[in-house]
Amino acid sequence: MKHLFIDKNLKYSGLELAPHWIYKNYKMQGDAIVAFVGECEVHLTEMVDVEDVINNEPIYSKCMLNFIAEMFNIGLVEGVLRQRLLITTIKEVLENDYGIKVVRNGDDLFINDKKLSVSIATKSINSVLIHTGLNIDATGAPVDAAELNSVKALDIKDFANKIMIRYTDELDDIVLASTKVSGR
Amino acid sequence: MKHLFIDKNLKYSGLELAPHWIYKNYKMQGDAIVAFVGECEVHLTEMVDVEDVINNEPIYSKCMLNFIAEMFNIGLVEGVLRQRLLITTIKEVLENDYGIKVVRNGDDLFINDKKLSVSIATKSINSVLIHTGLNIDATGAPVDAAELNSVKALDIKDFANKIMIRYTDELDDIVLASTKVSGR
Amino acid sequence: MKHLFIDKNLKYSGLELAPHWIYKNYKMQGDAIVAFVGECEVHLTEMVDVEDVINNEPIYSKCMLNFIAEMFNIGLVEGVLRQRLLITTIKEVLENDYGIKVVRNGDDLFINDKKLSVSIATKSINSVLIHTGLNIDATGAPVDAAELNSVKALDIKDFANKIMIRYTDELDDIVLASTKVSGR
Amino acid sequence: MKHLFIDKNLKYSGLELAPHWIYKNYKMQGDAIVAFVGECEVHLTEMVDVEDVINNEPIYSKCMLNFIAEMFNIGLVEGVLRQRLLITTIKEVLENDYGIKVVRNGDDLFINDKKLSVSIATKSINSVLIHTGLNIDATGAPVDAAELNSVKALDIKDFANKIMIRYTDELDDIVLASTKVSGR
Amino acid sequence: MKHLFIDKNLKYSGLELAPHWIYKNYKMQGDAIVAFVGECEVHLTEMVDVEDVINNEPIYSKCMLNFIAEMFNIGLVEGVLRQRLLITTIKEVLENDYGIKVVRNGDDLFINDKKLSVSIATKSINSVLIHTGLNIDATGAPVDAAELNSVKALDIKDFANKIMIRYTDELDDIVLASTKVSGR
Amino acid sequence: MKHLFIDKNLKYSGLELAPHWIYKNYKMQGDAIVAFVGECEVHLTEMVDVEDVINNEPIYSKCMLNFIAEMFNIGLVEGVLRQRLLITTIKEVLENDYGIKVVRNGDDLFINDKKLSVSIATKSINSVLIHTGLNIDATGAPVDAAELNSVKALDIKDFANKIMIRYTDELDDIVLASTKVSGR
Repeated sequence: MKHLFIDKNLKYSGLELAPHWIYKNYKMQGDAIVAFVGECEVHLTEMVDVEDVINNEPIYSKCMLNFIAEMFNIGLVEGVLRQRLLITTIKEVLENDYGIKVVRNGDDLFINDKKLSVSIATKSINSVLIHTGLNIDATGAPVDAAELNSVKALDIKDFANKIMIRYTDELDDIVLASTKVSGR
Repeated sequence: MKHLFIDKNLKYSGLELAPHWIYKNYKMQGDAIVAFVGECEVHLTEMVDVEDVINNEPIYSKCMLNFIAEMFNIGLVEGVLRQRLLITTIKEVLENDYGIKVVRNGDDLFINDKKLSVSIATKSINSVLIHTGLNIDATGAPVDAAELNSVKALDIKDFANKIMIRYTDELDDIVLASTKVSGR
Repeated sequence: MKHLFIDKNLKYSGLELAPHWIYKNYKMQGDAIVAFVGECEVHLTEMVDVEDVINNEPIYSKCMLNFIAEMFNIGLVEGVLRQRLLITTIKEVLENDYGIKVVRNGDDLFINDKKLSVSIATKSINSVLIHTGLNIDATGAPVDAAELNSVKALDIKDFANKIMIRYTDELDDIVLASTKVSGR
Repeated sequence: MKHLFIDKNLKYSGLELAPHWIYKNYKMQGDAIVAFVGECEVHLTEMVDVEDVINNEPIYSKCMLNFIAEMFNIGLVEGVLRQRLLITTIKEVLENDYGIKVVRNGDDLFINDKKLSVSIATKSINSVLIHTGLNIDATGAPVDAAELNSVKALDIKDFANKIMIRYTDELDDIVLASTKVSGR
Repeated sequence: MKHLFIDKNLKYSGLELAPHWIYKNYKMQGDAIVAFVGECEVHLTEMVDVEDVINNEPIYSKCMLNFIAEMFNIGLVEGVLRQRLLITTIKEVLENDYGIKVVRNGDDLFINDKKLSVSIATKSINSVLIHTGLNIDATGAPVDAAELNSVKALDIKDFANKIMIRYTDELDDIVLASTKVSGR
Repeated sequence: MKHLFIDKNLKYSGLELAPHWIYKNYKMQGDAIVAFVGECEVHLTEMVDVEDVINNEPIYSKCMLNFIAEMFNIGLVEGVLRQRLLITTIKEVLENDYGIKVVRNGDDLFINDKKLSVSIATKSINSVLIHTGLNIDATGAPVDAAELNSVKALDIKDFANKIMIRYTDELDDIVLASTKVSGR
């Protein structure tokens, strides 16, 4: 599984969570994850989370570190499990590499009881798509929010790459782990 | 998904990681997880981890908190993802409820660089089976080991139930999360 | 699996057979079945049954008891089997609770050689969708039709709930039955 | 899907519910169902139904009409749905062709509140296996039993073939029905 | 699996690679393959091959023998394997029946180092769709192309039928081969 | 997918077609294919091909080039398609690199109407296993056989590596091809 940090400010509007968005824009074919920094504004019309649509909860954050992942030929339950692993990975990198205590609740991350993240996993005809956004500057967010800006000595690109490397390594390891056991 | 703490000391020999072991012994049908305390001794002949067999690494721990889970009608890659979630859940309960810092590396847990856990996920014809053992008293373990005994104010049964409740709740939530998103 | 009788007259036009229609309108997340009474008029442009489109057979019935079910994370062959079980369940409730003899032919039900039902099962990206309509008043139907109106002492809401309870109970039981057998 | 009535008395012991038993003995390759008449005696050691093993309920009937089906490349939940369809088919042939009222409860059939049938569906590495037995002469059965012997004008071979033809026709039709609908 | 040679010149524009195109136009329900002769012109807006879109490579050939296949209830990796088998079948019919040496490279066929074919496999919600086109007259093609016109004594309809018969026979045989082996 | 030519004469008895045989003996974890030279003698008791068992056709060849492949987390129909691709690959390497005309019929290869190969694909609980053997010296074979010995300038190790490289490259390419197409 490939990964890329996109060195260019990009707004996330929800439309980027589409099949082959990574392939078409960054020429990375197959399972991949990319990260980029930018404003995050998802209107209800672009939301895949029906729960948020029902509750009339659009997403806004002035500046986020966004991850988009696409993985092919798997079902959505496995996709949500892979999303939870991404959330866990972000938590663990913050703990291990930056000494920040993070609490995970499902696909949400909290620092000092403030929400750091938004995340969703959905399906296209032949792939699972995951978006996770971490507040860098949460000005304008609808909830009391934690921000990566407040983490000392955190370089966004370096942080994003640490996460993507740990995540793609573990996914490869998980597939490999499924090949090393005798059946029962 | 059901859960049960078995209030009886049981040795784990590897033979318990078998289809319907939970159902036959504890009358819990369907997806379930149980926990029990006992010596853990898995000879090479009972190991499902071919890697350990190749490396000639039998498992021994004088006293462990053992979890056995069985989940039906899923594939093994999803099973390994569910195993990683169990490991993550154990880590998070130790952090959130007992203030213990734990480092996860794949399906291994460490406290102060000492190994706390063993774990494996395998497949039967129609289910995935997971075993995870946490050292309570690691006397005789082949590696430098961490022990739950050294965690203050940790009642094993209470701890095990916290883990099983958080884990089964999150698995239910994950399946539900797969039903709330528009396709792309 | 949840169920709900909607106490409000609703027209069925085919557009209701859509992913998350139940969730968006009735806040029931996950596998669910709902029932409601109303006119049934499906134009060719809204039909998912390509066979009917080819044969130029739109659907009309002045008043029907409609069932809509959505079930996630399964394939369409399993979905059609679940549709047949719904049809069988309707037949059996009419027999057992109302003493009416019903003949089933695939996904069609007949009383005294007159057609009582229409039904279809289809797939969205992540779910199977089932519609079944039973004539209450078949005025205007393109074929000679049986009607629930002619069944003595049949209260529509009570009848619908009996069907939905028996159906959702049996589906739960079927999944459970898959977890109680040794492999061969 | 092929079918065959075996014109030879055969005892059913449970060992016949094995992968390729039909192919090895009757040269019918692929999805198939066979029927035969004979004593039915399944000891606990040969039972695949763990529920019956737990409850210590071996099976005995002096003479049964037995059906064995094997279907490849499907999961067990779909297999149990196909078993329920077989049970429904038996009920419907008794109703339509012999005028007998039959009540179905899951995978059990009853005539006048007496149990007519036993049935189980299980999985091998690459197939689903179904056994259904209908009492012809239930002398020695552990429960109050209904018998085909008491059905007037019922020729066993003819009856069995009617069931197998209706069942295999409907399964073919179900697979075909999954190919005729627009996605949603 | 059914097959049909369409005795009418048809242009292939890419829009024909759609679910139920075969069923709606030729009344063949279920897995099927059809062949027809006609101009082939696929604009970028109709291309399913994102690689070609990225590389700005529309398809044009003045006259092609086109195959369209639709197969239901399978995944896309299996679909691509079935596409490769179609390509192999075309090669083998040219060799065995016409004495032409053909080199296959993935889903491309070459005669004397000139490209004979274009091909793609994609997925709809419930089916896999395959298009393969073989140049008859490649005037206007963007690459140096081989043509069926240059093969002596090749009658297009006869050639297409040979391919479709061999292909559908082998697919049936492959499914059957999956039902004849003991598990390990 | 990994590959290895085993530089040691090994007899193939059928027992080698077992889950993790490659991993246990050659430390190659995950999807892999190996090749080796040796006598091939499969008794009926070790045959997975029930058809051969029924027909009482054990396998014998004095010296064969054997391929064993194991691939995890796939179904058997896909496994048989992958077997056919291996057979096709062997044919194409013989054609392209050695100028030998080979005819394929399903999973059999023929040179001058003499049979060159035996092959089978089967399933374990979590993998597909493929064996293909090519006669080097067919003394004692039950049918009129072709032999690699008669192919000029064919170095067995070089030939086997060419096949394994082309095969594993194409399988990787097939999985990748499933990730580059828009859905329909």
